[in-house]
Amino acid sequence: MSGALLTDHYELTMLQAALRSGAASRRCVFEVFARQLPGGRRYGVVAGTARVLDALEHFRFGEDELAFLAAHRVVDAPTLDFLAGYRFRGRVDGYPEGECYFPGSPIMTVEGTFAEAVLLETLILSVLNHDCAIACAASRMVQAAGSRPLIEMGSRRTHELSAVAAARAAYLCGFASTSNLMAGRVYGVPTAGTAAHAFTLLHDSEEQAFAAQLASLGAGTTLLVDTYDVAQAVRTAVELAGPELGAVRIDSGDLAEAARDVRAQLDALGAQRTRIVVTGDLDEYSIAALAAAPVDGYGVGTSLVTGSGAPTAALVYKLVARESASGVLEPVAKRSVGKPSRGGRKEAFRRLDDSGTAVAELVTVAREQPPGTRPLQVPLVRDGEVVWKEGLEESRARHRAAFAELPVTAHQLSRGDAAIPTVFG
Amino acid sequence: MSGALLTDHYELTMLQAALRSGAASRRCVFEVFARQLPGGRRYGVVAGTARVLDALEHFRFGEDELAFLAAHRVVDAPTLDFLAGYRFRGRVDGYPEGECYFPGSPIMTVEGTFAEAVLLETLILSVLNHDCAIACAASRMVQAAGSRPLIEMGSRRTHELSAVAAARAAYLCGFASTSNLMAGRVYGVPTAGTAAHAFTLLHDSEEQAFAAQLASLGAGTTLLVDTYDVAQAVRTAVELAGPELGAVRIDSGDLAEAARDVRAQLDALGAQRTRIVVTGDLDEYSIAALAAAPVDGYGVGTSLVTGSGAPTAALVYKLVARESASGVLEPVAKRSVGKPSRGGRKEAFRRLDDSGTAVAELVTVAREQPPGTRPLQVPLVRDGEVVWKEGLEESRARHRAAFAELPVTAHQLSRGDAAIPTVFG
Repeated sequence: MSGALLTDHYELTMLQAALRSGAASRRCVFEVFARQLPGGRRYGVVAGTARVLDALEHFRFGEDELAFLAAHRVVDAPTLDFLAGYRFRGRVDGYPEGECYFPGSPIMTVEGTFAEAVLLETLILSVLNHDCAIACAASRMVQAAGSRPLIEMGSRRTHELSAVAAARAAYLCGFASTSNLMAGRVYGVPTAGTAAHAFTLLHDSEEQAFAAQLASLGAGTTLLVDTYDVAQAVRTAVELAGPELGAVRIDSGDLAEAARDVRAQLDALGAQRTRIVVTGDLDEYSIAALAAAPVDGYGVGTSLVTGSGAPTAALVYKLVARESASGVLEPVAKRSVGKPSRGGRKEAFRRLDDSGTAVAELVTVAREQPPGTRPLQVPLVRDGEVVWKEGLEESRARHRAAFAELPVTAHQLSRGDAAIPTVFG
Repeated sequence: MSGALLTDHYELTMLQAALRSGAASRRCVFEVFARQLPGGRRYGVVAGTARVLDALEHFRFGEDELAFLAAHRVVDAPTLDFLAGYRFRGRVDGYPEGECYFPGSPIMTVEGTFAEAVLLETLILSVLNHDCAIACAASRMVQAAGSRPLIEMGSRRTHELSAVAAARAAYLCGFASTSNLMAGRVYGVPTAGTAAHAFTLLHDSEEQAFAAQLASLGAGTTLLVDTYDVAQAVRTAVELAGPELGAVRIDSGDLAEAARDVRAQLDALGAQRTRIVVTGDLDEYSIAALAAAPVDGYGVGTSLVTGSGAPTAALVYKLVARESASGVLEPVAKRSVGKPSRGGRKEAFRRLDDSGTAVAELVTVAREQPPGTRPLQVPLVRDGEVVWKEGLEESRARHRAAFAELPVTAHQLSRGDAAIPTVFG
């Protein structure tokens, strides 16, 4: 299905008025950036670029869309004619997925006629605002977890299709797997899961439930041990599975204390290699607090899919330059109170010190790469054709490298300033 | 496309193990409820039921889905066979859309074999957790706005398809319109919008931009007046449009002060009937704070689509009864620390006092309607067939009535206890 109606009404009325005034054909540059990093985050993470490019390729006004717009008189007949032939033929540059960003970083730059570019505002922002918000939360959780693997399991706490994008963003930032099967099918994210409390309750006893699970899924499975009494469940689990039991999962109570008790019990029962997975309203802070507990893996749900307190990345799509009546591309900027913008098409570079640590984000209207920096934007679309193709594994590796390059302040979970300053020039 | 993979991996592994143990065919009752109302809300609002029922009708494991599950060895061959023939044949009851709910309210009850019902957990929760969260935020904003209309315009701040569901939920709770064209097409929500700052910046002057908009959209349009200087823009707007100018929009600064200044200026210019619409990071609190300002309408974005601090409704899907080995339906409940559940299939009734004001939510395993109450659940699905069909306008009217029935504590925006207590029996 076309995403052309995943668009705000006002983009079409602006198009109509600009077609009539003649300004619709002016060349324009729109930039996507965040004025601040929400939630006092130290860095942002670019995610969703590939989803934007995919949506762009399907952004067409077909018969259905045009019939709706005509029936509801959203726009006039000349505008409908324009939309019927609409196809983005401009260029897009942007930060590749997995890259980190900071306030003012132009993470995507769209260039084309006003008519071409204005229609993409809502769709581009929807995808990036969602995916970047989840990615940033995921990245912080991954740092907090250290070498321990994280399973994303928040599908049930968010819109059914946000869930798929969230699983993708989490994997991009270093999560090991997801519970979401659609994310496995569409994006190749590894999927995982074994059983819920309902499975235990379904059977006449916990012992019968565990036996059924082991018979079907093997001793390497993860048994959920907190439906009734944890200590009793662990005893039953090891009795039935033997020391080859893969893992036990604890989903309630004080997880640190429970993990210590269960670890001691498993060890005493000879199940030294049985792992302990904890779940239950975890976020980056509670994950960090469990660093000293004998935990082997975390399952994260609600806080991941809701961006852990920052459910949207606060990215905006602003006109920064446009062709004037005399055909010259000129910078433009609004002067609204508290929301001023910076005019001009910008390039971005990350300045690194001699040790390779990032020290500043340079956002500049100059065209040349300053020494001691690396460029941040890559070509995404040329003449309307998507020219950027990258697998999720590559983006995942980029995020690891981009995060590793940041100074240690980026590791801080507390609210504060961005890990590096943005320098405009 | 089938939503069958909008499902957590563990639902399929539970199915596999239960098929093998024989428990998969046991009759089960699952209930959807919230342990608490997140964010200290005084009431919840049911939304998304129609989307759940629609998804249920398309929940099939086709060749694509089965091929994925086989290739990734998510489940074994007997389970794939079962899934190939899967069709929900059970029953579903629930609170109709627009109804209010409270902690423990069984807003949806799913009854079928374990195999049938366990597979629906993630999809049902995803839809309801998202839509109920947005609906509750929307309802509070509508109360805060009093008789002034609200436009939903948050699409760009959330996942592109969450945006469509959010627009629907907002309209259900009394918003007048949405910016989201897809919500107009799919759900018939009225759409609205005129122009952004980019339209003003596109032209060589604000005057040219306003003239272009007026020429195309007529004097009844809404002109955005805060791109440069508000007072100058209002003067230009009335000069060009005359006193028939429909409205002006202010998107920045101190909105109360700006609205008072602009109202005085419009009145002095003879444009007494030109309305003032304000936008810019509004939520229920800032809407309430603008009650005394001369504002004629509000546009709400980010806070609406993110649930205004409570982005998920914290609804769970719990097994509360199942057939035992001897074929009797028995209540079941887990005893996890901090997350205990109440066993048994429950009915729900709202107790009203003599004036028709709600005084308690009765959630009971008894079958008979207590005097002085109204029943809350309606039949949604029978023998796998959807039997509940209702238009969005009816659900919208139900929400108005259900909210009006609540005691005045429901009007409080502050955090606190639910407006009425839940009585379990």
